[in-house]
Amino acid sequence: MAMTISEKILAKHADKSQVQPDELVEVKVDFALGNDITAPLAIDAFRRAGAKKVFDRERIALVPDHFTPNKDIASAMQVQILREFAKEQNLKHFFEVGRMGVEHALLPELGLVLPGDVVIGADSHTCTYGALGAFATGVGSTDLAAAMMTGKIWFRVPHSIKFIYRGKRRPWVGGKDLILYTIGRIGVDGARYRAMEFTGEVIDNLPMADRLTMSNMAIEAGAKVGIIAPDKTTEEYVKGRAQRSYEFYRSDADAAYETVYDWDVSGFEPMVALPHSPGNVRPVTDLPEIAIDQVVIGSCTNGRLEDLREAAKVLKGKKVAPNVRCLVIPATQNIYRKAMEEGLIEIFLDAEAAVSTPTCGPCLGGHMGILAAGERAVATTNRNFVGRMGHPESEVYLSNPAVAAASAIAGKIIHPKDV
Amino acid sequence: MAMTISEKILAKHADKSQVQPDELVEVKVDFALGNDITAPLAIDAFRRAGAKKVFDRERIALVPDHFTPNKDIASAMQVQILREFAKEQNLKHFFEVGRMGVEHALLPELGLVLPGDVVIGADSHTCTYGALGAFATGVGSTDLAAAMMTGKIWFRVPHSIKFIYRGKRRPWVGGKDLILYTIGRIGVDGARYRAMEFTGEVIDNLPMADRLTMSNMAIEAGAKVGIIAPDKTTEEYVKGRAQRSYEFYRSDADAAYETVYDWDVSGFEPMVALPHSPGNVRPVTDLPEIAIDQVVIGSCTNGRLEDLREAAKVLKGKKVAPNVRCLVIPATQNIYRKAMEEGLIEIFLDAEAAVSTPTCGPCLGGHMGILAAGERAVATTNRNFVGRMGHPESEVYLSNPAVAAASAIAGKIIHPKDV
Repeated sequence: MAMTISEKILAKHADKSQVQPDELVEVKVDFALGNDITAPLAIDAFRRAGAKKVFDRERIALVPDHFTPNKDIASAMQVQILREFAKEQNLKHFFEVGRMGVEHALLPELGLVLPGDVVIGADSHTCTYGALGAFATGVGSTDLAAAMMTGKIWFRVPHSIKFIYRGKRRPWVGGKDLILYTIGRIGVDGARYRAMEFTGEVIDNLPMADRLTMSNMAIEAGAKVGIIAPDKTTEEYVKGRAQRSYEFYRSDADAAYETVYDWDVSGFEPMVALPHSPGNVRPVTDLPEIAIDQVVIGSCTNGRLEDLREAAKVLKGKKVAPNVRCLVIPATQNIYRKAMEEGLIEIFLDAEAAVSTPTCGPCLGGHMGILAAGERAVATTNRNFVGRMGHPESEVYLSNPAVAAASAIAGKIIHPKDV
Repeated sequence: MAMTISEKILAKHADKSQVQPDELVEVKVDFALGNDITAPLAIDAFRRAGAKKVFDRERIALVPDHFTPNKDIASAMQVQILREFAKEQNLKHFFEVGRMGVEHALLPELGLVLPGDVVIGADSHTCTYGALGAFATGVGSTDLAAAMMTGKIWFRVPHSIKFIYRGKRRPWVGGKDLILYTIGRIGVDGARYRAMEFTGEVIDNLPMADRLTMSNMAIEAGAKVGIIAPDKTTEEYVKGRAQRSYEFYRSDADAAYETVYDWDVSGFEPMVALPHSPGNVRPVTDLPEIAIDQVVIGSCTNGRLEDLREAAKVLKGKKVAPNVRCLVIPATQNIYRKAMEEGLIEIFLDAEAAVSTPTCGPCLGGHMGILAAGERAVATTNRNFVGRMGHPESEVYLSNPAVAAASAIAGKIIHPKDV
């Protein structure tokens, strides 16, 4: 029977020749991760279950990235739990401040999550790795605990939805704009417990950084995974990084999809998600004048080197508007280092942006750029729920890095071409 | 009658030909400052007093540096108060994230505080500017409010204590070691409400960065000010920066001192202040093995370019110990920029240190590197009281930047020569 890429990966990991939607399967987990918010709960559940040893010390990552460098005693105590567990279990992949990055940028960069993998993470944006052709999804902390013990997890096989993107992207339109458009069209529950499969000539020509951005936000449409079939771009990305062997899966030509969306993106402008939903999307060209107080360029969605290059292209030789604070947060130490070598950090500092050590901070209202009442931010992050970046009376507008940079200069939301 | 430098500055600002210790004088304030913790209280007092206009919109600085980039909603609301007051009063010197730095590093760098000035700040380390030959001291928020209204403040003229440092500094011994030794000798109340006057051939040959470090910690001995007579080094530093005219004062040769300390520093080793007092000082060579979890290089005490150079000299080509997180925090955006140009940031990143945007964060347990229970840090900051950097059961050891860097590499407190 024909299968989608998601079904094939699950079948393989369930040691079955085939699976079908709605079937319950127990699958082998290739890699599991937790962060400073979720891992302490998982570790507690692990201990309460009487577990002694993790299933594989090389297939678990603990990444304290949400409230680090620690913003207070509570967050310091959380990270201490991770640190001690990592030591006790001799985990190979515990990432200390100074060696770390935002988890979903860090693990692909290091070749720890790979095509064909089943990856679970106690973080909703674990779906990011779908861009590599992995079945990657967020789970609860107790699911992570069980997986840390057994190396396995139960899934209901999701139905798949196919998204076909045709045409040619205009300048300044990237993965962020495609996924914002998609969520805008189908809504924040438009792919609930479904496997979103991103296909078409636009995806074929899409750089890996943009693909990671798209898969990252699959959860904002409620999806279980947001997957892209591996190709030459994938091979380019993983070769030289992969710390294990990996396998490429592709959907069969006659695989069954619950729905197929087919869009021509040729006329697309950069997209902005207005408060307070990632589904409240409009082309930047359709917006009224919206003054802003803060810009955040970073996060697991758009904190990669390619994102910083886009932002730098816009900010070069310009200054951030006097009333705006602009935060640039390279997603990993490695990205920071490379951005410096390329002269991007210099451009940001000259533009009077603040450059931060890697952290998830502002995206989740964690720290490092929290908004006061009545303040408005443009952010390259993934969520703009009420109070997401701070005060319940603040607002977050989601965009790509170029729009964010342009808006920082203008002090209002604008198209990068208008800088 | 002969006067000390402190008395001369106060006399001049009181419009008197002379003043003497214990006399109450009302003096003109050349510059006043507040930060995100203290200024909101001052602004509230200013408003409750019915004041409408500040005395001079060019002589007040508001620097949100303690909890910024904002760590939470409360800190964001604090900064919002500053921002709105700055706008309402059209203050020339409000420093937004991305344009700012740690207040006591920023204001001298910008030439806003100058030799011969009376400077008050609602922050205890305002005494830093004594290194420029200013009478600079920390005040409460209501004092700041009054000064913002009137441009004046009452002082009791302090008695002066003279410190003479003779001999020649060994390698790795700088201003931080001299002031730690001093506090260790006289105690944390050894100069209570006194003007500490730092003199002698060692001071004559001391670079401005080291002088700023010494004056910065005068408050840790309880002093009102920690002052150094301006000289060629001072002139070198202020020329090209000064945004106003300034005046050099020197103590008369026959000025009266309450006490005179006279020390030969030739045999000094780098000093460390052990928990939980800046007065609990020992040479690093006398310490037992003390394992550490964190290193902080930064702050108003030691976050200047010269400090980063010292740290980089030690860290170059080395790695921070696996169990240690090392935070490097350039004190201003300008220092950050220059450190990058000089290749220092590269050295820090290669050593696996985290480089942060400017902030006071960790020094005061504010954010950006808070300690968990049982953790130990070496910090180039100025205070190591119980719980200063986080949990009440954590410990802070104060040192110069080279000792801090060396300790980061070793994972325990060591002398830089032993790296």
